[in-house]
Amino acid sequence: MLRYERLADDIRAQIAHGTLRAGERLPSIRQLAQGHGVSAATAVEAYLQLEREGIVVARARSGYFVHAPSSPSPTIKAPPKRAPGPVRNPALQHVLAMLAREDVFPLHSGTPGPSLLPQAALAASLGRCMRHARTASFDYAPPQGHEVLRRQIAQRYAHVGATVSPDEIVITAGTMEAIHLALRTVTVPGDVVLVETPTYHGILQTLAALKLKVVETPNRPGQGIDVERLGQLLAQNAVKAAVLVPNFNNPLGSLTSDADKQALLKHCARHGTIVIEDDIYGEMAWSGQRPSPLRRWDTDGIVISCGSFSKILAPGLRVGWMAGGAWTDELTRAKYFSTVSSASLPQLAIADYLRQHDLERHLRRLRKTVADNAHRLRDAIYRQWPPGTRVSDPRGGLSLWLQLPSPGGGVALFEAALEKGIGTSPGVLFSRNGDHADCLRISCGLPWDDRLDRAVKQLGLLARHVC
Amino acid sequence: MLRYERLADDIRAQIAHGTLRAGERLPSIRQLAQGHGVSAATAVEAYLQLEREGIVVARARSGYFVHAPSSPSPTIKAPPKRAPGPVRNPALQHVLAMLAREDVFPLHSGTPGPSLLPQAALAASLGRCMRHARTASFDYAPPQGHEVLRRQIAQRYAHVGATVSPDEIVITAGTMEAIHLALRTVTVPGDVVLVETPTYHGILQTLAALKLKVVETPNRPGQGIDVERLGQLLAQNAVKAAVLVPNFNNPLGSLTSDADKQALLKHCARHGTIVIEDDIYGEMAWSGQRPSPLRRWDTDGIVISCGSFSKILAPGLRVGWMAGGAWTDELTRAKYFSTVSSASLPQLAIADYLRQHDLERHLRRLRKTVADNAHRLRDAIYRQWPPGTRVSDPRGGLSLWLQLPSPGGGVALFEAALEKGIGTSPGVLFSRNGDHADCLRISCGLPWDDRLDRAVKQLGLLARHVC
Repeated sequence: MLRYERLADDIRAQIAHGTLRAGERLPSIRQLAQGHGVSAATAVEAYLQLEREGIVVARARSGYFVHAPSSPSPTIKAPPKRAPGPVRNPALQHVLAMLAREDVFPLHSGTPGPSLLPQAALAASLGRCMRHARTASFDYAPPQGHEVLRRQIAQRYAHVGATVSPDEIVITAGTMEAIHLALRTVTVPGDVVLVETPTYHGILQTLAALKLKVVETPNRPGQGIDVERLGQLLAQNAVKAAVLVPNFNNPLGSLTSDADKQALLKHCARHGTIVIEDDIYGEMAWSGQRPSPLRRWDTDGIVISCGSFSKILAPGLRVGWMAGGAWTDELTRAKYFSTVSSASLPQLAIADYLRQHDLERHLRRLRKTVADNAHRLRDAIYRQWPPGTRVSDPRGGLSLWLQLPSPGGGVALFEAALEKGIGTSPGVLFSRNGDHADCLRISCGLPWDDRLDRAVKQLGLLARHVC
Repeated sequence: MLRYERLADDIRAQIAHGTLRAGERLPSIRQLAQGHGVSAATAVEAYLQLEREGIVVARARSGYFVHAPSSPSPTIKAPPKRAPGPVRNPALQHVLAMLAREDVFPLHSGTPGPSLLPQAALAASLGRCMRHARTASFDYAPPQGHEVLRRQIAQRYAHVGATVSPDEIVITAGTMEAIHLALRTVTVPGDVVLVETPTYHGILQTLAALKLKVVETPNRPGQGIDVERLGQLLAQNAVKAAVLVPNFNNPLGSLTSDADKQALLKHCARHGTIVIEDDIYGEMAWSGQRPSPLRRWDTDGIVISCGSFSKILAPGLRVGWMAGGAWTDELTRAKYFSTVSSASLPQLAIADYLRQHDLERHLRRLRKTVADNAHRLRDAIYRQWPPGTRVSDPRGGLSLWLQLPSPGGGVALFEAALEKGIGTSPGVLFSRNGDHADCLRISCGLPWDDRLDRAVKQLGLLARHVC
């Protein structure tokens, strides 16, 4: 094959892969020649060949462009898959594919609808960062995170009665990274970790990835963590750490009482079990006072408390934290050697927002909207869905947990709904063993509108079909 | 102890820890009472007690504030350290402490000085994101990253002759996270991984954290990776993966030739070794064409190619990537279960910048400035530093590597310089075994000014003192 033919082949492949798209400008002759280590003559020859084939077009004084056909553009060919890894949970692969789609109605979402978040105020904060702290915004943050934000987080702990120093806060890319780093710091592969069941699938996947063994204590709608069972499990097993979501467990939305929180801490302290607390939904109490994190009663120094702004300000800014206690230095090193530090600008923008605005006022509005929505949703489900469908009655959080009156109904409905462009989270995601196949998690954090109304009706019809 | 006394104690501790600072507003009586589960009367009592002690002051219609003393404020007490973890490399702990300081002249930096980066243009891109893509900027990105950015990265690979599909790009928080996730995906603890020596300490720390065994092939100033030795090591050991920096190795700045790149890929393919390529300095060629990444010649599909915008646009935005080839799905899952996805706004802002500006023009200017600086720095060092000091003569990158004419001189100079407020990177960081104790890495990416001039002179004096 001649040199220019090989070069033309490369360009054809880039167009087929979607790297170069219809109508886009191609590299200049000089760029092309240098990039491929060929002469300018060869580059010209390649473009002439592709022009003859109608794949590229030349425009005077502008260079070469990918031809924009009037027929539909070719489908993008995926790169050859040479050694695909094993997929443990088939539902998970569907869920990941769903997350990459933009055309799905997001009832699978675990965050409030964008219109319920203070986007204009955050945009103003970003603007202020660009005017007054531009260099700091674009430079590395310290590995532990910006102090101005760490102090504000410590102050929020103080509001719920927990004494946390800014020096022990480590800023992370959301709670998921905090839990991941905490587990990597306090466990080694093969250790036993206790979780609730059901629990957030991200926690289960992280435990599997870190090769940790799992024991499960039930979380019960309306009651929260089964502390008695937790005590038994700790007595029977050498449990290195427990990853717990006492405030509005995901997916159930259940709340563990203050008395049970203190009792479970006593069990853990007695057995030397480190507690990694996921308090991401703590602020999402639908009525009354925000419940305290476990850290409030941590007299033995056994809690790493993790939280985030993802559910209350902006999920896509990826700003969370851990209050690391005695493990702070180790956690900071773990953070440094996995991502250096979290992005600076989002940290400074959130710190500015917290300084400029009354977060509590925003939270009161957000909580009320979500609680009202949940009420309407539960009502619609009882009226429109198959008789026997059960719905959780949470006191906080952003989700409803549904149980369909048919085994496997959750998975079937998830699949049927996705085909119609409606995203949901199948119950099997929230268990290690494929349990909860009759269950489904849906969001109650989206603003009520016609689209939501229609989606819930359509889900009801599909559910009747499936059951 | 009475309830209000305990509450007053808590507030005193928050002030001592720096959570609440002199002059700051304290929670309202209502917030305080709710947060601590006490009556309003108890909250009032606590504030009155602290007011009597002169620790807080009441202001009419504004509430309570931390008293701002006219004497210097008390030093912030660190939280009790209950079980500090082992520190492997004592220099590392000093380096981490240095990174948290703002008063250090950053000759330790591995990035260009902020004034050399296009901050105004990036600020404009952020503004456009806020106007035209606000919701997407604040919402989760897809786990693999925003497609608009992935396509632009694939196009940049095309410019250097490598065919990469946007579908196999995974956006990460910089190259460090890319290497970390790639290692976690293709190795298990106990596997053998090949690296160069010297090499970036972040790579060595990551290998240690993942419990991987290490074999080392030399990287030689002016010549790059020792490919013959690499071939021997692969023949003698079952090497699962190699983490290589063929373009301007950090700290040496050496460039591996195209012929050697192809030869090392053949060795790796023959022995089934997966190559994780760190191409973060690839764009920083001081003259001529940017060298190609290994991926260009990867006919066997054994390369995961990692890169970043940290060194050329903005380190603090934390936007890097990996071109994952056959491992793309697995790498995407690993990313999802460690941080969900990278922050949205920085991805969209960089994509906008790349659409609006000629990156090559910026790079030409940046490369020239850095090359000129390196020339001046080498000159100053030869004139002012102890005779016998050796300086690397790189063809690209952002660092100079110095060898002092005294064993341990690098560590001693690092410590003496830090005391004077000048940051450097001790050579021992770049080895597993405490080698290179006579060496030091300094930045040549800072703009030349009086401060830099003075810092280099002062380092020279300290070096003469140390040697």
